[in-house]
Order: sequence, then structure tokens, then C-alpha cells
Amino acid sequence: MTAFDRLIAYQRDTAALAQIAGRLGWDQETMMPRGAAAQRGVEMAAIEAVLHARRSAPEVGEWLADARAPDEVGAAHLREIRRAYDRATKVPGDLARRLAQVTSEAQGIWAAARAGEDVAAFLPVLEDVVALKREEGAALAAGGDVYDAMLQDYEPGASAEQIGAMFDAMRPRLVALRSAILAKPAPKGLSGQFDEAVQMQLAVTLAQAFGYDMARGRLDKAVHPFSSGSGADVRITTRTSPTDPFNCIYSTIHEVGHAAYEQAIRPDFALSALGQGVSMGVHESQSRIYENQIGRSRAFTGWLFGRMKDAFGALGPEDAEAFHAAVNRVHKGYIRTEADEVQYNLHIMLRFDLERALMSGDLQVRDLETAWNDRFAADFGYVVDTPSNGLLQDVHWSVGLFGYFPTYALGNVYAGCLHEAMRAALPDLDARLAEGDTSTATAWLRDHVQQFGGLYEPRQLIEKASGAVPSEEPLLRYLETKFTALYDL
Amino acid sequence: MTAFDRLIAYQRDTAALAQIAGRLGWDQETMMPRGAAAQRGVEMAAIEAVLHARRSAPEVGEWLADARAPDEVGAAHLREIRRAYDRATKVPGDLARRLAQVTSEAQGIWAAARAGEDVAAFLPVLEDVVALKREEGAALAAGGDVYDAMLQDYEPGASAEQIGAMFDAMRPRLVALRSAILAKPAPKGLSGQFDEAVQMQLAVTLAQAFGYDMARGRLDKAVHPFSSGSGADVRITTRTSPTDPFNCIYSTIHEVGHAAYEQAIRPDFALSALGQGVSMGVHESQSRIYENQIGRSRAFTGWLFGRMKDAFGALGPEDAEAFHAAVNRVHKGYIRTEADEVQYNLHIMLRFDLERALMSGDLQVRDLETAWNDRFAADFGYVVDTPSNGLLQDVHWSVGLFGYFPTYALGNVYAGCLHEAMRAALPDLDARLAEGDTSTATAWLRDHVQQFGGLYEPRQLIEKASGAVPSEEPLLRYLETKFTALYDL
Repeated sequence: MTAFDRLIAYQRDTAALAQIAGRLGWDQETMMPRGAAAQRGVEMAAIEAVLHARRSAPEVGEWLADARAPDEVGAAHLREIRRAYDRATKVPGDLARRLAQVTSEAQGIWAAARAGEDVAAFLPVLEDVVALKREEGAALAAGGDVYDAMLQDYEPGASAEQIGAMFDAMRPRLVALRSAILAKPAPKGLSGQFDEAVQMQLAVTLAQAFGYDMARGRLDKAVHPFSSGSGADVRITTRTSPTDPFNCIYSTIHEVGHAAYEQAIRPDFALSALGQGVSMGVHESQSRIYENQIGRSRAFTGWLFGRMKDAFGALGPEDAEAFHAAVNRVHKGYIRTEADEVQYNLHIMLRFDLERALMSGDLQVRDLETAWNDRFAADFGYVVDTPSNGLLQDVHWSVGLFGYFPTYALGNVYAGCLHEAMRAALPDLDARLAEGDTSTATAWLRDHVQQFGGLYEPRQLIEKASGAVPSEEPLLRYLETKFTALYDL
Repeated sequence: MTAFDRLIAYQRDTAALAQIAGRLGWDQETMMPRGAAAQRGVEMAAIEAVLHARRSAPEVGEWLADARAPDEVGAAHLREIRRAYDRATKVPGDLARRLAQVTSEAQGIWAAARAGEDVAAFLPVLEDVVALKREEGAALAAGGDVYDAMLQDYEPGASAEQIGAMFDAMRPRLVALRSAILAKPAPKGLSGQFDEAVQMQLAVTLAQAFGYDMARGRLDKAVHPFSSGSGADVRITTRTSPTDPFNCIYSTIHEVGHAAYEQAIRPDFALSALGQGVSMGVHESQSRIYENQIGRSRAFTGWLFGRMKDAFGALGPEDAEAFHAAVNRVHKGYIRTEADEVQYNLHIMLRFDLERALMSGDLQVRDLETAWNDRFAADFGYVVDTPSNGLLQDVHWSVGLFGYFPTYALGNVYAGCLHEAMRAALPDLDARLAEGDTSTATAWLRDHVQQFGGLYEPRQLIEKASGAVPSEEPLLRYLETKFTALYDL
């Protein structure tokens, strides 16, 4: 066997073990008895240790040094295996252990602080997390930019400068759009009670309508919806609320976007370094284009309105136009995960700028709450009322996820690029969506994005698929056009 | 750290990874999408390889050579770690791989052969399995008895000679009892349709009545009921049939016996070499005493009759006596898993004698069907009508499980010993059971058997708990007394 062949064979077992860790995560959120949490923590640590040992094994370094890729696909395998090896070997074991321990504690402290609206209780441990993450970033950056190094965990090839330039161009136009919208009267939302079992039936119907293959997946309930797994076993979760069926419907479509991506990857990439979505940003582009550009379009919501009337009877909105307006309602709110298409990106940019400043040292943890609240008031036009609606709302920083937030907005940017190209390629798309037929859209995404898994780097993939260098312009054009019409601006 | 401490720390991760493998097995039978089977096979092989590498790691051998146990518990840890190390290092890797491959194929061939009633299609691959198992047994036995060596995988410390002597003493008395019973008129069974959702509700009620802690477990449906996991996450499955609620009820109680054992083990043994039931025989003693000596007793069935009438209305039997007779009905049948308390052990003895002869070479695979059918006719008094009711009924041999069958009957023998001691210690047991209160019985079993996990070797444990050397006499006395009364012999 050549060094290349050895690497591929070795990676197969590593990928299989990573799938197992993912399956345990799914079990934890859906099936695990509550009394098993502590034991599960030990189990997760044990399999993570196995994965870390495999990724950083000296023989992987030796094989990587000797391996010659036979072709473009082989080169991509080596690129991804090398990335994981470098990641695993650059951070000293002792630092990794301290980070694991502190973030594990910090998550509990964050949850208690949020419940108690007590910022002061959270900041000391956040200081520890920030200090350790800077140390980790320095080890990963090896002299380069610390925040850029962190980004690579979620968005290989991305740079903070490039993302920052995009976001700076988006911010004033989104703030202006938000201001104009909020000056108008808000459309009516849904009203009534919506049977939760019927919502779950509708969720299954929608998942399948968007091409999710239930023979290689399943749909369950969880507190926070997520998609999990790759290849032949990609599971999704959703949630229900008796007064807000849109929560269930759009969570489901969002997760189906993630899951359909994983299910569509070339079967010969299964259990390899290329057998999953290439980055968080590209992943989010799929979930967002399913959820928003397709799922919240006038054409598709026309069809959905009919299905919802069949399922629930009277909803509130009395025709498809009013229903479309309700689906796309923009309203004052503090919580990122509940934000509409316009305000969502403002949430992300706020976090991106603050976490970048925390990592560079330009912002101190003790000044974080003021910085958050000032920025929020400036961009949203209203004032944070309580910490759980502000700085304490997201789990990310407590568990050390720095560099993750920007991929959410990057996903929206990529979705904008793909959507424009897809519309140009599929002139009858709205006619299909109006019949609830998403297949031409999902087929286009499968052919141009999803099938490739980790073969191309993120920006290269989006450029190939959309035929243009990725830019924020298509997303902004889409949002301005859509909401100008909806709100008669 | 001493060598002993290193071993204990290392074993903790090994035990955690073994729990993960068990959880995957549970998922496969309950939740996994059908399209994921092939990928799951790769995942299972990957984690089994990790476990094998850990169990046979050279440093374990070195630590074992140097380790000094600080006390009795420490000595038991070393005993169990050494057993796993010896098992993992004695069988050459190439033989283990061939066995894994052949048994994986053989299981599929067996399933097809059983469906097609085609013994000839199964025998060639069974020959391969038997030949490889003999080779493996010789490696494990290192000059000793091959079948004894195999027994150690399931029943540490057991010998075929000892088990054979027990079974030889049991066989004529059980054959005589069966003959006498089948000469009598059969009592009426249940009649009617039984809502399967109500059966599952009753299963939850019964599981909790028998002390199963749902906060550290869960109950789902599966084709073949099983219990899975140790410590804080012990899950059970059951099944339902619209015409036979006893299937659900007694499968549930049986699996609760296994699960309660795991849940009752001392918490300080969790994720250690002592943190699970000590043998298949002792495990089966718990499931059987829950299911039979308690669950099928006159006292408990009196209470159960009331619960079933409440749940289903008319059942067939009109009073508690008739209900007790229906629960304990002995009838002609071919299938081990459906057999009553009297005939079950005859099934096991048949398999024990045949597989022992296969391993010693006294019986050839080509003569197996004749040997099975002759023995069946001799012991059961009626003739096997079709291979799926005979030689092809069990999966065990196809997957290489030789030495496993006798532990089922050994479990019954141990249950007999424990039951006699428990009755002597708890004079008011029937009064409690008549009220559906199993707590004194389960507490006695927890205190005398379950809490100890792997601390004592099986026979030693049963002797300590029952106060006598394990013997078949208590089981035979119990069966003869019970069925003489039930059938008016």
C-alpha cells in the first residue's frame, strides 16, 4: 500500500468514529434518559480522545509527508486530512484539556447567569475562556492573525478582513432597510391554536417535499432543532409551539437544507475526509436558501397557505398575500434565533465585531456589555431591556466558539449568490414552487453545490456554482427588492 | 501513578467506549433508518477495532504484570481486566478477522435458509463457522478443553463437565414432568384483541412496579426484546402482539430483570471492569426470577389479573385461578423462545449437547439435522415438522455463539437457588406480591446479588447469596411443586 492509500484507509475509520460521536450527540438531545448526563459526558470525552489521538497520530504525519495524490480528488482528500492533522497537532495537549474543562464549566455558569439575568456572574469565567482561546488562537496562528486562525475551524480559507469588508458594506443598507420597514405598520401574524401532532405531520410532508430521504434519516423533536450525521444516516430535529406553527415549519425546512446537503454528497465520498459539507458557511447557505429564498417566497408560501388551511382550518391571514406578509413579518425583537431575514445579519455583525475585538485585545470582557448594548441601540434602533435579551442570549462564547458567528451571515451571503444564479438558470421556478414542487431548485443545488462535499474550498465552490466571485450584492438586492415590495417602501 | 492506578484509569475509557458500542447496538434495533445499515456496519467495526486494540494493548500487559491490588475489590478489577486482556491477545488477529467475516456472511445465509426452509443452504457455511470456532477455541484453551474455553466468554469459571452433570440430572425429571403435563387437558388461554398502545402503557407500569428506574433508562419497541447498557443508561425494549398481551408483559418483566441488575450495581463500579453483570448465567437468573418465580407466581398473577381486566376488559379466563393457569400453560411447541418454564430447559440441553459434540468433533455438521430431530423427539415426545421449527430456529450458531446456550438454563438453575433462599428470608412475600408489591423481592435480589456487579465470580456469588452450593435441585423442586398443583398431577 502507498502512503496515500494508507491515509485513505485510516481516515475511513476516523470518519466512522466521528459519525459515532455525532450519533451520541443526537441521542443526547432526543432519546437519552435525563439521569445519564454525567455518564454520557465521560463517554463523549472518551471517544473525543480517541478521535484526537487518531487525527494527531505520528503515522498520519509521516504518511502525509510521503503521500502523492493521484488526481484532483486525491489532492482534496490530502488537503482535508492535513488540515485536521495540523489542527490536532498545533494545540498543546495541556491547553486543550484546560479549554475543555473551562468551557464545560462555563456553559453551566452561563446558563445559570442567563436564567438569573446576572451578567456579573458570567464575566469572570468568560475572561478565562477568552484568555485560553487567545492562547489557542496564537498556537494555531503560528505568528499570523489569531482570529483568522480561529475562523479556519468553521470556514476554511476565510479571512476576517474579507468578511469584515463584506459586513461593512452590508451594515448601512440593512440598517436603512430595517428603519424603513419598522416605520410602517406591521402586518398581521397568525392567530389560533395549532395541534402539535398535526404540525409534526406537516413537518414530515414538508421535509419530503424538499427532498429529504427518510429512508436515510428520521425526524424527531428537540429543544433546539439541529441536523446531525453524514452519508446514509442524517437525522433532523424540529420543535413545536401550539401558538406558532411557523417555528416548526421553518425550523424543519432549515434543518432539511442542512440534511439534504449531507444526503446529496457523492456516495464515493462517504466516510472520507470529503464526506461532509465543506464549511459552516456553505452549510448555512443551503439551510438558508431552503428556508428563506425558497421557503419564504411568494410562490411557495402560496402553496403552503393551502396546506396549512387544510391542516388547521382558519389561521388568521385570509389570503395568500396576507399569509406571505405574515411569514415575512419584521418586528422589534432581541433574539438572534427568532430574527427575520433583514435583522438577522445585523445580529451577526454585532457579534463578529465584538468577538474580533475581544480576541485582538481591543475590547476587554469587563466592557463587553456596554459595547453590546451601544451597538444594538445603534443598529436596531431600540434598547436592550435585559441581559438574557442581550449579551447572555447565545451559548456560543461560553463554550469557546469564537469565529463561528460570522459563518451564519456568510451563509446568507452565499445563499444570495446561489439564489441569483439559480433563478437565472430556472426561469419557471416560481411556477413550480407555486405548486409546492421544489425539485428543480433542490436538483440545481444538488448538482452545483451539494454533491461535491469537501471537494472544493468554500469560496471556490460558490464561485463555480454561481459563476461569479462571492459578494454581498445579490443578497442585498434580494432583500431590498423583496421587502420594498412587501412593505410598500 | 502506580501500575494499578494506570490500569483503572485506562479501563474507565475502555468501559466508556464499550458503552458507546452498546448504545449503537440499541440505536440499530430501535431508531436507525433502514438505509443506514451498511454504514453502521463500518461504524461498528471501527469502534470494535478501537476496543480490541485497547484491550490487547501491550501497556495493559505490562501494567498487569506490575500491578498490586490494594484490596479485595482491586483484586476483582485485576481479575476482570486480565480476563479481557488474555481473551484479546490469545486469538491471532487474522483468525479474528476471518471469523468476523464468515459469521457476518453466515448470519445472512442462515436468515435466507430459515425463510426458505433450506437446511442444505446453511450447512456449508456452518461448517466454516464450526471449523474457525474450533481453531479459536484451541487458541483460547492453550491445551485445555476447547468447549470449556468458549464457555469462559459467557460464564467465567464454568466447566462443561459441571454443567453437563447438572443437565443430566435435570433431563429425566423434566421429561417426566412434561409427559405428565401433556397427558392432561390444556387450560384455556387468553382470547380477544388487545390494544397495543394500552399494552405499552401497561409495560411501563409493570417496569416501574418491578423497580426499573425510568430516569436512567427508557422503554421502546423492537422486533426482539433486549436490555442494553450499564450504569446510568440502561435501556429496554419490548414488543406487542394484538392477540397475545403476555408476550409484551413477560418480555418486559424479563428485560426489566436484566436492566434492574445493571441499574443496581454499586455506583463506584460504574465504567469499570466490575460495572456490569458478572456473567450471562447470573444475568439470566435475574431476568428469569423476575419473569417466572415472581411474575408467574399465583400471588403476583392475582394482582396482574386485576390490572389486565382494568386495562382490557374481558380476557378469556374469568377468575384469578384460571388466569394463573393461562399464564403458565404448557403446550406442544417447537420454538425455544416461546417455551414455558418446563420445556425451556429441554431446549437448552439439546443445544448444549449438540454444540459440545460439534466442537469436540464427535458430531459432524452434516449429521446435525438428524441428531437434532432425534433428540427433540426423544425429549419432547413429538416430531419436528419443518427446519425453521428445528435446527434453523436460532441465530446463535450462525454468528459463532458456541458456549452461550447453556447459560440460559444455568440462569434458571441459579434463579431456583435464589428463589428458595429469598422465600426463606421473606415469609410474607406472597402477601406483598398479591398487592403487586415486588419491592421486598427486588430489594433482596439487589442486596444479595445485583449490587456486586463483577465483584464475585458467578458460582461464588450465587453461593454467597443463597447460602448453598449451586444445584439444580431447588429449580426442580420449584417446577415439580408448581406444575403438579397447576395440572393436578
